[in-house]
Amino acid sequence: MSAYDDLMAYQRQTEALGQVAGRLGWDQETMMPRGAVGQRAEESGAMQAVLHARRTDARLGDWLSDIDDAGLDAVGRANMRHIRRSFERISRVPVELATELAMVTSRAQGQWAEARANEDVAAFVPVLEQVVALKREEGAALANGGDLYDALLDDYEPGAVAGDLDAMFAALRPRLVDLRNAILDADAPKALSGNFDESKQMKLTRELAKVFGYDMSRGRVDKAVHPFSSGSGEDVRITTRTSADDPFNCLYSTIHEVGHACYEQGIDKAHLLTPLGQGVSMGVHESQSRIYENQLGRSRAFTGWLYGRMRDVFGDFGIDSEDAFYGAVNRLQQGYIRTESDEVQYNLHVMLRFDLERALISGDLAVADLESAWNDRFKADFGFEVDKPSNGCLQDVHWSVGLFGYFATYSLGNVYAGCLHGALRDAVPDLDGQLADGDLKPATAWLRENVQQYGGLYTPHEVISRAIGTQPTEGPLLDYVEDKFRGIYKL
Amino acid sequence: MSAYDDLMAYQRQTEALGQVAGRLGWDQETMMPRGAVGQRAEESGAMQAVLHARRTDARLGDWLSDIDDAGLDAVGRANMRHIRRSFERISRVPVELATELAMVTSRAQGQWAEARANEDVAAFVPVLEQVVALKREEGAALANGGDLYDALLDDYEPGAVAGDLDAMFAALRPRLVDLRNAILDADAPKALSGNFDESKQMKLTRELAKVFGYDMSRGRVDKAVHPFSSGSGEDVRITTRTSADDPFNCLYSTIHEVGHACYEQGIDKAHLLTPLGQGVSMGVHESQSRIYENQLGRSRAFTGWLYGRMRDVFGDFGIDSEDAFYGAVNRLQQGYIRTESDEVQYNLHVMLRFDLERALISGDLAVADLESAWNDRFKADFGFEVDKPSNGCLQDVHWSVGLFGYFATYSLGNVYAGCLHGALRDAVPDLDGQLADGDLKPATAWLRENVQQYGGLYTPHEVISRAIGTQPTEGPLLDYVEDKFRGIYKL
Repeated sequence: MSAYDDLMAYQRQTEALGQVAGRLGWDQETMMPRGAVGQRAEESGAMQAVLHARRTDARLGDWLSDIDDAGLDAVGRANMRHIRRSFERISRVPVELATELAMVTSRAQGQWAEARANEDVAAFVPVLEQVVALKREEGAALANGGDLYDALLDDYEPGAVAGDLDAMFAALRPRLVDLRNAILDADAPKALSGNFDESKQMKLTRELAKVFGYDMSRGRVDKAVHPFSSGSGEDVRITTRTSADDPFNCLYSTIHEVGHACYEQGIDKAHLLTPLGQGVSMGVHESQSRIYENQLGRSRAFTGWLYGRMRDVFGDFGIDSEDAFYGAVNRLQQGYIRTESDEVQYNLHVMLRFDLERALISGDLAVADLESAWNDRFKADFGFEVDKPSNGCLQDVHWSVGLFGYFATYSLGNVYAGCLHGALRDAVPDLDGQLADGDLKPATAWLRENVQQYGGLYTPHEVISRAIGTQPTEGPLLDYVEDKFRGIYKL
Repeated sequence: MSAYDDLMAYQRQTEALGQVAGRLGWDQETMMPRGAVGQRAEESGAMQAVLHARRTDARLGDWLSDIDDAGLDAVGRANMRHIRRSFERISRVPVELATELAMVTSRAQGQWAEARANEDVAAFVPVLEQVVALKREEGAALANGGDLYDALLDDYEPGAVAGDLDAMFAALRPRLVDLRNAILDADAPKALSGNFDESKQMKLTRELAKVFGYDMSRGRVDKAVHPFSSGSGEDVRITTRTSADDPFNCLYSTIHEVGHACYEQGIDKAHLLTPLGQGVSMGVHESQSRIYENQLGRSRAFTGWLYGRMRDVFGDFGIDSEDAFYGAVNRLQQGYIRTESDEVQYNLHVMLRFDLERALISGDLAVADLESAWNDRFKADFGFEVDKPSNGCLQDVHWSVGLFGYFATYSLGNVYAGCLHGALRDAVPDLDGQLADGDLKPATAWLRENVQQYGGLYTPHEVISRAIGTQPTEGPLLDYVEDKFRGIYKL
């Protein structure tokens, strides 16, 4: 056995344990008895302690010194890139800081949920101050003299820097705002209303999952409070939710999570339980969930097919044509909640968080001033007042659990999805004809071939630019959104 | 922090990781997608490697040397007894042997299932020879010069020795054989037949679980191929199964597993995630599952209540009185399969395995001769020929996974259940009146108070003798079975 073989055998066990820890999280959201919360916290803590010990083990440092990457093939070099990066980052953060962050964010998540239920920002401020202070410390440790926020962002989107994201948002913002304003002056399509049997929603949602290429022999669909995808390789599970008056929530949550899950299921089996065996970044992950959900799932062609299936399943539900159904699926959502937004305004929600969290990390914004900063910015961006904290700065879980640097990857994923959509249309000229038949196979096969199979083999930016044959830009997404919504709103 | 505190903190994490590993097993039997088998084997292997490393860690040896048990209270001394015993046993088995046993038994389980499906004993013999040879090695390592079989038995029933079990079986055998022979000459009660909706079976089975005191806020009931109970403390899950023509299989499997689960749920919360926080032995565990299933669940009084509930749920199913229903529940099963047997013959099945496995471990019986030895013994004990290996020596999974020394604990559990049943009747004089109302609370409260709450605080023998106020013997079980079946068969 070479040092590389030893390292990879060690890493394989760590990856397997990481999958176990992830499945414990899935269980907690889907199957765990409600009285098991306390014991589960200890179980999860014990798993995290094992993983942390393995990821900082001195043997890793020895192997990394002993191995000459130049002597390895492309897969070996990519594995080394991931393992080196992970070891260097984790080694920079003192164990006391990592432990305190784990404890404080665990407590903060509960306090956030309680503050949100009570509409009580003041109750959340002290613990969020702790989280922000610790994340600034962590950023400083990781940055090694560089920018704190960039250092945190790198956890979710390796290689990305805030300056590039600034430029991305600067390109997106004016055209999206103009489009939104034009739409607000136009007549809105009729919204869906009525009562839709929830067990029928679940049946249809499982059908859609399969239509989009989700392999049920290596996954399963359950209900949970929040939709999510979990796991890699041979065991990639998704959750969705149902509400009787809004079947689109169930169906499009499912299609979104299926995008994430198909990415994980689509990775070359040779990478199973290696550092290449999972999606390479949050941005690339979101590109898959968003292109499945929006460019494919909310297209005129596919919604035509879905309209027929929904009428088969639910009978007449008061929408009398495919065009009207397409409008109902895509109509602008004038609301407070990012996750319920539409393709026009979604990225405006993300920008708000991106700017505020950068100010929190730089120290320009105090946590005590967060609520007023949020409300001012929301009024300025969306044109109406935040009515309560659960619709404002308490709506997302992210900051309570320390996810600073995460939000921007949602928009990056949208931009990547826009680019991939353009390349997909070039590669599959009859895409609309296929979507109109409910046939997603050629589209998902192209995504698997050009993005998903690689897992962590290339960097995030590389995998997208290789797939589209050029550098990614905001243009394709903006052109697509403008074209689509001008059509729907007859602008 | 004292050395004892350090040790207990370490142990607590190990216990928590043990719970995670157990839940992974539960997931595999209930929720896992079928395509995840290969990845799951690596995940489980990684968890077992972590647990083995923790259980053999040199720090344990240091703590165990440093701590003076005499300075601890009763709980502390009991914890030390468990930790010392586990560490000493695991330290005696060379790591190469432990690893080989894990690998061979994992492979053997698959080969057993295949051999069983193909009715092909010869295909199973070579791997079972390996398992037996390795278990003999393990026994020798554990026995430290003593008896090999006793050393293996101690894994499942600490403190038990084969000589005592010999005496137990010698006491059981003649009276059970006489009773069985008398029954075979008598008229049998009518059997249940018909078609019973499986979703209604599941609904009723969940109701029964609650009636028997299973706390659903710290557990859940799912379907699996084989019924089992899994987990300790706040998260104790059970499984059951349904078959349309045999609702008793579902209902009594559930009551049996509820007995196991209530034992785990009933342990004093102070012992959570400590060595005292789980059932103390297989024999004591089985005493709880069997008294729930048989002495309570199959009593005349309770079956009267169940008859009413089954008629409520399924309508008229062709059994026209409570007495006839009681007969249908309890009638003798003339079959090959231990797990489908009745209270009269069950222990005869166990004796057969006990004698054969002792001969395998002592070397008196070669694996190649197992099938003919089994078939001869079965004919002698049950009076008819084994028709195929899946009804004979391939019927149980135990030996393939290395469980030598396990079977006898089933009978020990029955004997303990007999003793507890006597003491329970003394303590709760109106037991039959309560059971006839479907009220299990006083009975299960007595079991919780006198057995379950203690977890690992006392030795197996101590916990039973304390509960019954005397030494356990076979008499109460035999008297109960004879009385019950003489009544049913009018002998």
